[in-house]
Amino acid sequence: MAPGVTAEKKTEDEQSSKDNLIHLSNPHLEKMKDDILYHFALGTGTHDFPALFGDVKFVCVGGSPSRMKAFITYIAEELGLGSVGADYPNICAGTDRYAMYKVGPVLSVSHGMGIPSIAIMLHELIKLLYHSKCSNVTIIRIGTSGGIGLEPGSVVITSQSVDATFKPQFEQVILGKTVIRSTNLDDQLAKELMQCSKEINEFNTVIGNTMCTLDFYEGQARLDGAICLYAEEEKLQYLKAAYDAGVRNIEMESSVFAAICNLSGVRAAVVCVTLLNRLEGDQISSSHDVLVEYQQRPQKLVGHFIKKCLGKV
Amino acid sequence: MAPGVTAEKKTEDEQSSKDNLIHLSNPHLEKMKDDILYHFALGTGTHDFPALFGDVKFVCVGGSPSRMKAFITYIAEELGLGSVGADYPNICAGTDRYAMYKVGPVLSVSHGMGIPSIAIMLHELIKLLYHSKCSNVTIIRIGTSGGIGLEPGSVVITSQSVDATFKPQFEQVILGKTVIRSTNLDDQLAKELMQCSKEINEFNTVIGNTMCTLDFYEGQARLDGAICLYAEEEKLQYLKAAYDAGVRNIEMESSVFAAICNLSGVRAAVVCVTLLNRLEGDQISSSHDVLVEYQQRPQKLVGHFIKKCLGKV
Repeated sequence: MAPGVTAEKKTEDEQSSKDNLIHLSNPHLEKMKDDILYHFALGTGTHDFPALFGDVKFVCVGGSPSRMKAFITYIAEELGLGSVGADYPNICAGTDRYAMYKVGPVLSVSHGMGIPSIAIMLHELIKLLYHSKCSNVTIIRIGTSGGIGLEPGSVVITSQSVDATFKPQFEQVILGKTVIRSTNLDDQLAKELMQCSKEINEFNTVIGNTMCTLDFYEGQARLDGAICLYAEEEKLQYLKAAYDAGVRNIEMESSVFAAICNLSGVRAAVVCVTLLNRLEGDQISSSHDVLVEYQQRPQKLVGHFIKKCLGKV
Repeated sequence: MAPGVTAEKKTEDEQSSKDNLIHLSNPHLEKMKDDILYHFALGTGTHDFPALFGDVKFVCVGGSPSRMKAFITYIAEELGLGSVGADYPNICAGTDRYAMYKVGPVLSVSHGMGIPSIAIMLHELIKLLYHSKCSNVTIIRIGTSGGIGLEPGSVVITSQSVDATFKPQFEQVILGKTVIRSTNLDDQLAKELMQCSKEINEFNTVIGNTMCTLDFYEGQARLDGAICLYAEEEKLQYLKAAYDAGVRNIEMESSVFAAICNLSGVRAAVVCVTLLNRLEGDQISSSHDVLVEYQQRPQKLVGHFIKKCLGKV
């Protein structure tokens, strides 16, 4: 904002030029009368998007539908918006592909596992936010991951999302040709989230690179899949090379998440807890209760961030 | 079987040499005391796999958990194994990653959307069948897809699963290096399924190539995603080139499904209904009831096949 211009005095034009609207990189959509978001079971012809979603400022996404339901209950309580024991309806109840919950300015959406699954969800989410005329939206993935060289339960805020050869890029085939996209995330947002972790001071948090793979077993050098044609030594060499390239955790969604958010002009971050240290093993063998507590850590961190943004801390 | 040797007379050794056991391409598993199938919330240390799953001969997999529940109810009735209105418990109730149901020799498992999601499920499924000492197992994916040049509602039995450049292969990155695997499916099984479709004679069925992509929007040349940087003409050129390469439908799981089943020595097929003709459009805009009826077609076809195999037709 220019010096001397106060928030109260600014005109509507100034306001809208400051507002960060969703950028839709698709000229064809203008020509469509209605838009059916098939995997959400929502459509512009059947739902009033601005009324339903126009006030959304924070979208939190994660793999598991039950975890994303738990998050909306948690954030509602934290923001003082929910009544105790309230049940939040699944906005995507017409399908079982994804689950979506909303309270105040916060939307919580599940995305399943892997790049293709989160990509479908993000295409439809970006269109939903666009049709709803949302502005200044922050999208944060709160997920689980395997750590490298970190104590289990540590939280990693992604600096760069890298592929299985440690390059910060997302490769995709469009019309049969390979296209490479940037996986940049918002540095400033990562720092703000790190500051939140320091303030709550309950668990170890680092900023580091996140490796995004297309496979959980062979793609992440595990020895415990149905297929494994390499030796333990080769596995450890690979994971150590990843560590040397700055990788602190491995998951399966961050690269396309960063690429799509980038192209859509949305501020984005990835905050994942590590369920195990992959230098020590492959099987996720901690008790159910321990794993549940670990999975609450990204929720707590992002919950604190949202409260701070809304002036509620 | 050699002439003159009857089934009743064969010895146990002859029987086991005839039995097609699950082939586990992983020497490391022998050394593990217990095996936790994390995404199923099942483990060899906590569950008696041979008792639970030893009699499984048919595994049907599909993206949607509710569709796979509907299938188990349908097949139970068809095989005369279920009581009317019976509720089949979700064997993977300890997680929301996948859902699994069983009746008699039939297992029904959901796999979510996309190659990474079905790959996690298949690694754990193959290990489950191996630990359960199952033999002579057939795995069939019953799914949905976009058709090319076919009337919506047509069913495609996959001849070859091809990638986005129409090659019959699955490319995967292991320890940072690209590995290419065959996507061959069982020709004989495809023919048997085609014969079943002729016998029930209720909908159009073809044998054709299936293109398996990593993305639903740009990866399948749609014009209605949040991002689309090509023209309608380029889209149609690409889809017509696919048609000329023998592609009759597009989905997101068949290549890794074929690759993993191949390596595990399991007879496998892919049977998908087409929800729309992609030469005519991109949006899935048929009514809910029409789409539900379409999705029952692969179930009917595979149901008939299983009944026939069990001598119940």
